[in-house]
Amino acid sequence: MKTNEEILDLFENHLAQIQLPEEPKDLYAPIIYSMSGGGKRIRPTLLLLVCEAFGGKLQDALPAASAVEMFHNFTLLHDDIMDNADVRRGKPSVFARWGENVAILSGDAMMIYAYRLLSGAPADKLPRIMDIFTTMALQVCEGQQYDMDFEKRQKVSVVEYMNMIELKTSVLLAGAAMIGAVLGDASEGDCKKIYRYALELGLAFQQQDDLLDSYGTVEELGKRIGGDILEGKKTCLMLNAMSRATEPDRDILRSTHLDAKLSEDEKIARVKEVYDRYDVPRTIQQQISLRFERALAILDTLEIAVERTEHLRVFAQNLMGRKK
Amino acid sequence: MKTNEEILDLFENHLAQIQLPEEPKDLYAPIIYSMSGGGKRIRPTLLLLVCEAFGGKLQDALPAASAVEMFHNFTLLHDDIMDNADVRRGKPSVFARWGENVAILSGDAMMIYAYRLLSGAPADKLPRIMDIFTTMALQVCEGQQYDMDFEKRQKVSVVEYMNMIELKTSVLLAGAAMIGAVLGDASEGDCKKIYRYALELGLAFQQQDDLLDSYGTVEELGKRIGGDILEGKKTCLMLNAMSRATEPDRDILRSTHLDAKLSEDEKIARVKEVYDRYDVPRTIQQQISLRFERALAILDTLEIAVERTEHLRVFAQNLMGRKK
Repeated sequence: MKTNEEILDLFENHLAQIQLPEEPKDLYAPIIYSMSGGGKRIRPTLLLLVCEAFGGKLQDALPAASAVEMFHNFTLLHDDIMDNADVRRGKPSVFARWGENVAILSGDAMMIYAYRLLSGAPADKLPRIMDIFTTMALQVCEGQQYDMDFEKRQKVSVVEYMNMIELKTSVLLAGAAMIGAVLGDASEGDCKKIYRYALELGLAFQQQDDLLDSYGTVEELGKRIGGDILEGKKTCLMLNAMSRATEPDRDILRSTHLDAKLSEDEKIARVKEVYDRYDVPRTIQQQISLRFERALAILDTLEIAVERTEHLRVFAQNLMGRKK
Repeated sequence: MKTNEEILDLFENHLAQIQLPEEPKDLYAPIIYSMSGGGKRIRPTLLLLVCEAFGGKLQDALPAASAVEMFHNFTLLHDDIMDNADVRRGKPSVFARWGENVAILSGDAMMIYAYRLLSGAPADKLPRIMDIFTTMALQVCEGQQYDMDFEKRQKVSVVEYMNMIELKTSVLLAGAAMIGAVLGDASEGDCKKIYRYALELGLAFQQQDDLLDSYGTVEELGKRIGGDILEGKKTCLMLNAMSRATEPDRDILRSTHLDAKLSEDEKIARVKEVYDRYDVPRTIQQQISLRFERALAILDTLEIAVERTEHLRVFAQNLMGRKK
């Protein structure tokens, strides 16, 4: 079995061989730009690892893996328009570089192209894989819509938030894993389990992302600490605190980021002080650990030999930035 | 065999039974709004007629027909953002009613949903149908990109223009027809012929659209005559005239719509005077008739009995607004 690094190499090679048309330039150049802009290839890697764990052929799974990666990059491209985001992975976003119309249209073409790639899957499995892929893709749109809805709302519950991030980000990882399982001829039960494994992992990853944004180091996060607090973002930390705080503390949580008299550091410190008072970081850390352990425990229950799941455990640890 | 009207009824019934989720509202309500906003259902009708002409089951073809209609409405939705168009079929466009972000995202969901519908096609034909559908969908994006490119360019040749409208509009009709042929178990040769039939018809229809905009009656066109001239649009009339006119006449064609000293009626009259001088309307009318006849002639060469193509002839005549 291939290691995670070997799988990634194989995938990058496959991607590099995809030949997009050259004309019209403004339709296809942004797609090439997006796809070669780095990214950790988390979803296709997982798809391939799962396929291999169940004894499937990697060659059969590469088209679907590239479809998932293209779909992911399509969502980023359109999200950047909706969020007015100028920068993506340290470079100008397609929206910033080519303008809005090109970003809309090349995003559309990207999504259609994802289905082109997907249709390279073995014909006997195509209906099933299309179903998983399409369900997942619609859920991602639903998640993005809830995310935009929540920004405009005063009150969002923790349950609503977790449902939103599940749709917006975790189902994509889970769907990728499930497609890998189908391609590896996993049993129906194992397909569902592997979906659950990736879903828990995806949620843990998102919650960790929220936690690190306020409590991580610059090295871990790759950007300055406290960005979410300064934006007044409804993260799982914020919503957890809001659900348990007294009214005066809620006021602090709601209004600190708008207070023109405070410096940025003061704003961050003031909100974190409330978080700490309600033991929010530890609560969230426990939730993350619980999900992570739950994900790994699912691997023990699969119908395949435990040794075959080794790379999926390493994948989980890498994703969460944990040493084994 | 069912008449065109019966086919349309069947299709509308099928569409009405598609149940979209209710939440999130701003994702799905615009899709329902778009799909129920009228439209002539030209493409699904053709798909179904072709399927039936080859002896296929209409029930098998309804999912693909609805996929094609949903894809068509998706393109209108995103085009309206790119064109800043507030009105669609006499009602506010999704873009105007819900704003840009909702229009982008619900359009995305619509396109994904089109693939969901498409996957309702018989499994043994799904890979082939997906391939035709995806190729067609990418070409529509290419056509839209060329259209936007041409708006910014000084000079566009007639050949470039015809290639653009073929991609932007005709391949969708042609792809729909071909999917119908595949679902009707047509031979490979007949699939290609039926594609060509619809492509010629689509081009004839678009050219007629250009012609009516300057030379039709308000009844035929459904809006005021001369809109294209007032916008200085590069239509097939304009490009045909530009390719043959003297430099002073070209100047009139290029600049009249910008001349603030002229009334709208004067602008229209002045441009049409140049068109008439070069016999443009008759030239274009000949091209339209040639394509129309070519489309009908293709039907004579199919491997099925000529009687079975009767409804496809009626379809062509209806589309072009011709009495039999």
